[in-house]
Amino acid sequence: MNWTEMRKRFHLPDGVIYLDGNSLGPLPVAAAERVRRTIEDEWGQLLIRGWNTGADGEGWMGWPTRLGDRIGRLIGAPEGSVVVGDTLSIKVFQVLDAALKLRPDRRVILSDSGNFPTDLYMAEGLIATLGQGHELRVVAPEDVATAIDDAVAVTLLTQVDYRTGRMHDMASLTALAHDHGALAIWDLAHSAGAHEVDVTAANADFAIGCTYKYLNAGPGAPAFVHVRPDLQDRIAPALSGWLGHAAPFAFDPSYRPGPGIERMRVGTPPVLQLAALDAALDIWDDVDMPALRARSLELSGRFFDGVSELCPSLMPASPADQTCGSQVSFRHDQGYAVMQALIARGVIGDFRAPDILRFGFTPLFIGESEVDAAVSHLAQVLTTREWDQPQFLARKAVT
Amino acid sequence: MNWTEMRKRFHLPDGVIYLDGNSLGPLPVAAAERVRRTIEDEWGQLLIRGWNTGADGEGWMGWPTRLGDRIGRLIGAPEGSVVVGDTLSIKVFQVLDAALKLRPDRRVILSDSGNFPTDLYMAEGLIATLGQGHELRVVAPEDVATAIDDAVAVTLLTQVDYRTGRMHDMASLTALAHDHGALAIWDLAHSAGAHEVDVTAANADFAIGCTYKYLNAGPGAPAFVHVRPDLQDRIAPALSGWLGHAAPFAFDPSYRPGPGIERMRVGTPPVLQLAALDAALDIWDDVDMPALRARSLELSGRFFDGVSELCPSLMPASPADQTCGSQVSFRHDQGYAVMQALIARGVIGDFRAPDILRFGFTPLFIGESEVDAAVSHLAQVLTTREWDQPQFLARKAVT
Repeated sequence: MNWTEMRKRFHLPDGVIYLDGNSLGPLPVAAAERVRRTIEDEWGQLLIRGWNTGADGEGWMGWPTRLGDRIGRLIGAPEGSVVVGDTLSIKVFQVLDAALKLRPDRRVILSDSGNFPTDLYMAEGLIATLGQGHELRVVAPEDVATAIDDAVAVTLLTQVDYRTGRMHDMASLTALAHDHGALAIWDLAHSAGAHEVDVTAANADFAIGCTYKYLNAGPGAPAFVHVRPDLQDRIAPALSGWLGHAAPFAFDPSYRPGPGIERMRVGTPPVLQLAALDAALDIWDDVDMPALRARSLELSGRFFDGVSELCPSLMPASPADQTCGSQVSFRHDQGYAVMQALIARGVIGDFRAPDILRFGFTPLFIGESEVDAAVSHLAQVLTTREWDQPQFLARKAVT
Repeated sequence: MNWTEMRKRFHLPDGVIYLDGNSLGPLPVAAAERVRRTIEDEWGQLLIRGWNTGADGEGWMGWPTRLGDRIGRLIGAPEGSVVVGDTLSIKVFQVLDAALKLRPDRRVILSDSGNFPTDLYMAEGLIATLGQGHELRVVAPEDVATAIDDAVAVTLLTQVDYRTGRMHDMASLTALAHDHGALAIWDLAHSAGAHEVDVTAANADFAIGCTYKYLNAGPGAPAFVHVRPDLQDRIAPALSGWLGHAAPFAFDPSYRPGPGIERMRVGTPPVLQLAALDAALDIWDDVDMPALRARSLELSGRFFDGVSELCPSLMPASPADQTCGSQVSFRHDQGYAVMQALIARGVIGDFRAPDILRFGFTPLFIGESEVDAAVSHLAQVLTTREWDQPQFLARKAVT
């Protein structure tokens, strides 16, 4: 992989070291032009015809599955098993509902306290709506394996912890779930584009993820959902929207689910966001995932070592080995202020309550020099207590 | 209103008479530049900071409610009662679920056969998920008033029929629903931006709609939802996503609904689509709605009269009076082929199964000359049987 050439495919502002691609990926240079083309040449010229006949002969209507297949290649999913749309929250609801219907005699959804809150919130909302006495059982991440028992209908786990980067073993936990007759949902929000993922090898039942982090598709880019092929036609979608219907334009009075993954579509897809996603995915055609992972570990290891040496007041919050995703996190009592001071120096990471400083290492646009500079800035912020100023300490209340 | 000046604010391709703004509005000239700015100057330069500090000092995070308020002005909704996001299908699910929870002792959802199918499909999906024996009662549009009884929990009606343009009287049906202790949901997909709407005067409980039709926000633009202020804090959202949480960035383990309309937010908003919507809404700041409605009736009446005179083989499907929305529809056995032949001449309307030719009249960019030319083209297509050719008759199967 030629990382220098790869970096040129992104627009990165001067004076910024961007270690937050795990939250919002930077702008791929080609995305701006691609969206312009979709707006001016497709929407502007084709108008309604754009749905069936795009500028390149393919209508927008087909984009959610075509882009789904492109994402599928990055997560080991076969053709026809991934579709793009909605938000990750909505996709959690969709697959969790589908899974519970496949296990009607069981009542436990097993998750862990490292899961991203919206996954837990959507599970709560679904449980209340079902009104069948389901239980959301939340255990510590390290206790998941022992908590899987025959009462569990489905495991709802995010592979990479959004705060610490700690990575679950997808294959072994899925196998364990299956051994107990449970289904496994994997949230790949911090996995897709971060490292090699193989949902097929892991035999995952469902996978979901977002495209605005490592995949760099832009703010509010849509989510994706994977359903293992043998399960697709057994799902009765609760979110039974017209574009998941077997014949959307027959305008039938009753819902009939579409074939395969099509039934996971709901409403009209966000074409402008999809255009940006399409351009962002072009970059991934040229990425060698094992090489990306090796370099990500190299860079995050370099950062970890540097910080460990120069910033003794930071406590590591991430595992310093292969079980970490493409990010490194540390704890500090004044983590919020420290991050604000660092951002003021142009080093952008992010803060996650209550005390986590989080840094993402995305080799597509970050190299050794940025890592070293970031360590140096962080060390200076801490040793001089630069963070201890009103403008950095003042924080919006989170009630 | 200076309609000639208004027309200049849209990009319309040469040689096209666009009578399908009721399906996908045309490109506002300013939208292309606005999206470019959001991509290059905000995403490209601000990166993650764009969520809290946009180019104009307002972060993307606030856009869904700010744009909701802008739409609220077009439908008579007070500040803080509308939020933008997701798709119309998702919003149907959200408000229907909320309404049923407010009427726990009732089991009937009343709708009509003129409702857009996705509204009915989402109701079916919700009913199956609830598993409490709810019934979706679908009557003919003209029978809605007599069908409202004390068993009805909620009416789910689209104000303007997507095929015929026939308009329900929102105020009287809402009053009737309330008299019987039911709640009223209004789908404004074909109303918002088409004519004056006043959800407050009608005392509607919930309203939903889309922004890619008359509001011209582009393909896949997000939906909106209005909840009457006194109901907002009584709703327990099933789609309890993190951005509807009282404190999204506290990352609490449990869901607590946000204040007021905020709880109708679910996941990360689609920023690029929102940028286009914002630009599209600028146009509406300068629209006088009574004048728009008067002109829309004038243009659609002119078309109706012309077609009635010159195209005797077309059967009117729309009421020819004030009870029609901003569209006119006709029936023809070979409606699909007739529309294809017309589109080949550059007159773009659309076809709705089984036999409806649909034409939208949107005074922002359509005038008398387009109406007269469209009538003339349609008459020629019919009198010469121009539609009776293989390329127009061949139709994708809708199974």
